[in-house]
Amino acid sequence: MSHSTTTVDIARVTREGTHPTSDVVAREEPLEIRIEGRSVAITMRTPGHDTELAAGFLFTEGVIDGPDDIQAMAHVDDPADPRGNTVDTVLAPGVPAGRRHAADRALFASSSCGVCGKETIDRLLVKAPRITQPIEPAPAVLFALPERLRKHQAVFEQTGGLHAAALFDADGHLEVSREDIGRHNAVDKVIGWRLQRDEVPIDDRILLVSGRAGFEIIQKALVARISVVAAVGAPSSMAVQLAEESGMLIVGFLRDGRYNQYGRTR
Amino acid sequence: MSHSTTTVDIARVTREGTHPTSDVVAREEPLEIRIEGRSVAITMRTPGHDTELAAGFLFTEGVIDGPDDIQAMAHVDDPADPRGNTVDTVLAPGVPAGRRHAADRALFASSSCGVCGKETIDRLLVKAPRITQPIEPAPAVLFALPERLRKHQAVFEQTGGLHAAALFDADGHLEVSREDIGRHNAVDKVIGWRLQRDEVPIDDRILLVSGRAGFEIIQKALVARISVVAAVGAPSSMAVQLAEESGMLIVGFLRDGRYNQYGRTR
Repeated sequence: MSHSTTTVDIARVTREGTHPTSDVVAREEPLEIRIEGRSVAITMRTPGHDTELAAGFLFTEGVIDGPDDIQAMAHVDDPADPRGNTVDTVLAPGVPAGRRHAADRALFASSSCGVCGKETIDRLLVKAPRITQPIEPAPAVLFALPERLRKHQAVFEQTGGLHAAALFDADGHLEVSREDIGRHNAVDKVIGWRLQRDEVPIDDRILLVSGRAGFEIIQKALVARISVVAAVGAPSSMAVQLAEESGMLIVGFLRDGRYNQYGRTR
Repeated sequence: MSHSTTTVDIARVTREGTHPTSDVVAREEPLEIRIEGRSVAITMRTPGHDTELAAGFLFTEGVIDGPDDIQAMAHVDDPADPRGNTVDTVLAPGVPAGRRHAADRALFASSSCGVCGKETIDRLLVKAPRITQPIEPAPAVLFALPERLRKHQAVFEQTGGLHAAALFDADGHLEVSREDIGRHNAVDKVIGWRLQRDEVPIDDRILLVSGRAGFEIIQKALVARISVVAAVGAPSSMAVQLAEESGMLIVGFLRDGRYNQYGRTR
């Protein structure tokens, strides 16, 4: 039994009848991300790799520029939170006050948004400019990625309930994979893993996600300088628009030896 | 071409080679929900049925108690927002100031959360108490639902990119279905549709979602007093916990003439 799953009592119903049994479900709990005691965001996540998630989130949402901006990060030791659902961050002395008080803006979930999608994209491109030296993996390399991820994605097979994200090099070697009930959390975890190793930007890797590629995923990848995002499912219109304007390649519907290229044309 | 989709230039890559073509993708744009000019939330959504979405959101997140709390709701007429991505709400005079100033709390995305999952559930059950008179649809009724939804879910077939939510009566007749790039938005749209017709609570309907059933979906359903939530995919641990404590039935993995029952035992 992994810490990513838990067992519950259920009844299984078929045309033949109803039978009590048990089932393994993906764990989902809130994680509160704090900066110096102040709440910045709460995300529903699958427990595990929490500081990777928090570090990745702060990086991909533009609160920090890199590992040097974090002086310390750890779970809060609080009897009221026995399940370790709070991570606090001490920023380095040099981080501007504006970011330190990011919590005042509160709505981080929407920091990526604006009433106009185009305006959102333009603002993002100021912070994360166009990619000029993308990697160009061969089709045969891309075809092979989903099966490699599946071999590492143990929990999904058990529960059908988790998303996965993984980084591969341009030759298709898997570097790291993470699972989470939230697709964006799985992406923040793999990016946070790199950040904690002082290995950002991530400009020589392919990001693979198990589901669809929405705007949020492409935005996070762009901030991390990832130039190729591959998805087993479909991209959204705004994801494609951002990929076109940022020079990113989205590999969509990657399965059964085929895919669609969106965004950057090669 | 629906307003839910848009066409983009792509390249299709197979083992035989690369061919330029076009593809239909699901539209994704931000919607800003306002109360009397102040931003309450921004959600990435598929345009269409925006006031249903906004009304459903305000209801399922506990800002309003019902249709009488809304005096007026409409898209903002603003040249800076030519795509209609802002909906403003005038609340009825009787709505308490605390709710009217909900925007001050800002982080609505997290109003459902807390550092402890159990505490979150306990707090929610104060607002939305245990369901005491659930509906009890027959297994044969439930088995038939996914196919009925699929017939109404035109865009998903085109793009593979949209979630669907639908309400059915206890005999399995479809009442309303909505699609969105966000599963929670599709749920808010069907609940908002009912709210705008002055038909809440929704205590005699089954809610079906095309994907998985996470905590957020079950929470929204509970606030609307829906006693049965069916999902083609898996529920999460916290969804199951909330269903157990609230007396809701989750029908998970509903496909191919079988399902699993989580939460309320019958």
